[in-house]
Amino acid sequence: MIVETLAVGTELLLGQIVNSNASTIGALLADAGLDHYHQMVVGDNVERVAADIQLALSRSDALIITGGIGPTQDDLTREAICLAVGVPMVRNDEYADRLRNWWERRGREMPESNLRQAHHPEGAELIRNPKGTAPGLKLKVGDRWVFAVPGVPAEMVPMVERDIVPFLMSESGVGGVVVSRLLRSWGESESKVGELLSDLYDEHRNPTVAFLASSGEIKIRLTAKASDESTAYELIRPVEAEVRSRMGSKIFGADDETIERVLFDGLAANGWSIATAESATGGMIVSRLTAIPGASEFVIGSVVAYDVAVKESVLDVSAALVAEHGVVSEPVAVAMADGAAKRLGADVVISVTGSAGPDPLGASVGTMVVGVHTPHGTKARSLHMPGDRERVRVYTTTAALHMARLAIAGEWWDALPDRWTQPKAK
Amino acid sequence: MIVETLAVGTELLLGQIVNSNASTIGALLADAGLDHYHQMVVGDNVERVAADIQLALSRSDALIITGGIGPTQDDLTREAICLAVGVPMVRNDEYADRLRNWWERRGREMPESNLRQAHHPEGAELIRNPKGTAPGLKLKVGDRWVFAVPGVPAEMVPMVERDIVPFLMSESGVGGVVVSRLLRSWGESESKVGELLSDLYDEHRNPTVAFLASSGEIKIRLTAKASDESTAYELIRPVEAEVRSRMGSKIFGADDETIERVLFDGLAANGWSIATAESATGGMIVSRLTAIPGASEFVIGSVVAYDVAVKESVLDVSAALVAEHGVVSEPVAVAMADGAAKRLGADVVISVTGSAGPDPLGASVGTMVVGVHTPHGTKARSLHMPGDRERVRVYTTTAALHMARLAIAGEWWDALPDRWTQPKAK
Repeated sequence: MIVETLAVGTELLLGQIVNSNASTIGALLADAGLDHYHQMVVGDNVERVAADIQLALSRSDALIITGGIGPTQDDLTREAICLAVGVPMVRNDEYADRLRNWWERRGREMPESNLRQAHHPEGAELIRNPKGTAPGLKLKVGDRWVFAVPGVPAEMVPMVERDIVPFLMSESGVGGVVVSRLLRSWGESESKVGELLSDLYDEHRNPTVAFLASSGEIKIRLTAKASDESTAYELIRPVEAEVRSRMGSKIFGADDETIERVLFDGLAANGWSIATAESATGGMIVSRLTAIPGASEFVIGSVVAYDVAVKESVLDVSAALVAEHGVVSEPVAVAMADGAAKRLGADVVISVTGSAGPDPLGASVGTMVVGVHTPHGTKARSLHMPGDRERVRVYTTTAALHMARLAIAGEWWDALPDRWTQPKAK
Repeated sequence: MIVETLAVGTELLLGQIVNSNASTIGALLADAGLDHYHQMVVGDNVERVAADIQLALSRSDALIITGGIGPTQDDLTREAICLAVGVPMVRNDEYADRLRNWWERRGREMPESNLRQAHHPEGAELIRNPKGTAPGLKLKVGDRWVFAVPGVPAEMVPMVERDIVPFLMSESGVGGVVVSRLLRSWGESESKVGELLSDLYDEHRNPTVAFLASSGEIKIRLTAKASDESTAYELIRPVEAEVRSRMGSKIFGADDETIERVLFDGLAANGWSIATAESATGGMIVSRLTAIPGASEFVIGSVVAYDVAVKESVLDVSAALVAEHGVVSEPVAVAMADGAAKRLGADVVISVTGSAGPDPLGASVGTMVVGVHTPHGTKARSLHMPGDRERVRVYTTTAALHMARLAIAGEWWDALPDRWTQPKAK
């Protein structure tokens, strides 16, 4: 079963957005053991979209089209399918009613243009969109398949993952299942992880070993194919054990155990609450924590002390301490964490003071000091983060969450990698 | 002059990396006024790469291939060009000597595999790579052109920007330019904007009109082609004026005037500072504001009062008020904004209290109350946001920034769209 993808949207050609959908779908197809040889991008031009659909149907068994199925005039994927395949457009009255009801329930009148979403090429089935109003399409063309899904990743992913990929797997008749195990690590660079595991990468074809870097964490994905799930897990188990034995506590979780979840588990085990006191990260840490459903069980809140006056007035950091050590310093990070613990009544506090640039604030840009207060004590450590302002903030946020996890576990930070704790050469 | 791109690399198909090169080159081509209708991605398979090269040469005037020209066995772009075009591979002895010297100067022996980089399809010129050892290729095929550059962005960009694009511009002889104008709007749905502007979309081919939705904002892109920049702007001007007259104050900025920048401009005009007092958005608003370089000129900080106790202890929201109106209510949002203004010493405060789900906190999930304190007064308004927790938080953050912009301008929120202020039917 060969599958290819076609992303529709002039904004992709103009470089206004990156086609991350192709990459997401590529990973899902690879995990499912489906072949995938071509990805295409085309603009909002009905003839060119239709020509690309015909091309895909001439060389692949299935085509997944992303984008161009919204309500506006430049959403012309439906028309292009009709043109490519030679079927008329029909209107789905049931879906038109559902759309009208959706708008009515919200007490709003539906713009007539939204009815475009209730049209589809004759013979197409609708695929439910759990996150939006534009349904996906599924159309059989001879012995081949065309699917169309929205370009918005949050809507596209569940439709491809839950409907399209399982359908293509069963259609491909290979049988068997593909099981993936995601091991999550923090504290080593991607190249170091690659080195540590390079023989596993070279030797293992089932499970395969793959690496994925994101915001300072490295994920190791083990993917096995077998006749059934438990056999696939049996194949993964010894390789997972080997990865864990080589990486030790650098592996902090598996599958959906994100750092936020692991951190909350640590708090729950101790019956502790958490808060943050942020300067350079400007609320990113508390924002990541509160993004998790159920955060209110653990998160008290935060004082974002962007202005130094707030550090003094709300967090009780003394002006003398700031004058002596500088605002970007370990003593100030400790005082911020202790001050927030008292002011907000939290058991654990993550504090950050630093220079994300462009203004160095008396420290070199990229110097970020993370402090953690727990009922067992407060410590702070200076990190030296590479990159631009956004990268420094994101990587520091991830590092701070991991440092809090380690502090809660009583391990603190002796094993923190040198590359972050050593100052950059001047 | 129609140009297309082909990215070579199985890692792209597997989703291990995203094809950001296509987006980078797309933006360079658009700026240069070169047409660009297709982007392709193919794996490390010489026959398939060759077939895609032939396809591109059948429909475009020039093809830029990224990737597959390094020294390892899976770098087979050179072989694929030979196969597609029907020319033999030849060795460039001069380049082979330069490669040997490069390694000798570093006191290392050259791996023999590196000599692959000194081979090229007969007739090709080499393009200098200022950042690496793999040269680019430039080959005329009939009246068309094939270019190959490395896949590493740092090596690819200078070669495309300084060599390939200027060459194609002079070759195309048009000498024209393409100018884009991005109008940013907030307060109408994508379908409503599409309806309002549908005749402009249908009638105008120069400039073209396109829509792009992101997190509650709708961007309208006008793109004109002309012999020079000022003529292109002349073409855009009347269409922009028409869009602005139909959308009124719903258009809040153009090009790189993001809501954060427009908000900061409003603060600067009044000499005001800003802070936030956030519950349901959990720090997202202050995090977005502090993401902007220069934020420290305006942003004082934030109190993230996730726990109701913090609303009372730090923001001085009275327990009686919370008991009377509920924590998700306009009076509480007003009290939070006023309390934070006093506590943090800020002129303007954005406050949010609401239920992002799954716990409704006494209000229906998706009910978000935004308050804004300015030196002229404090108001709050309940919004009803559709979608899941993440979507509610993101859309509320955008809405809150816009409501602060309108409050600072003294307009407040009479024109706020019904679809957000009407409660959902139960």
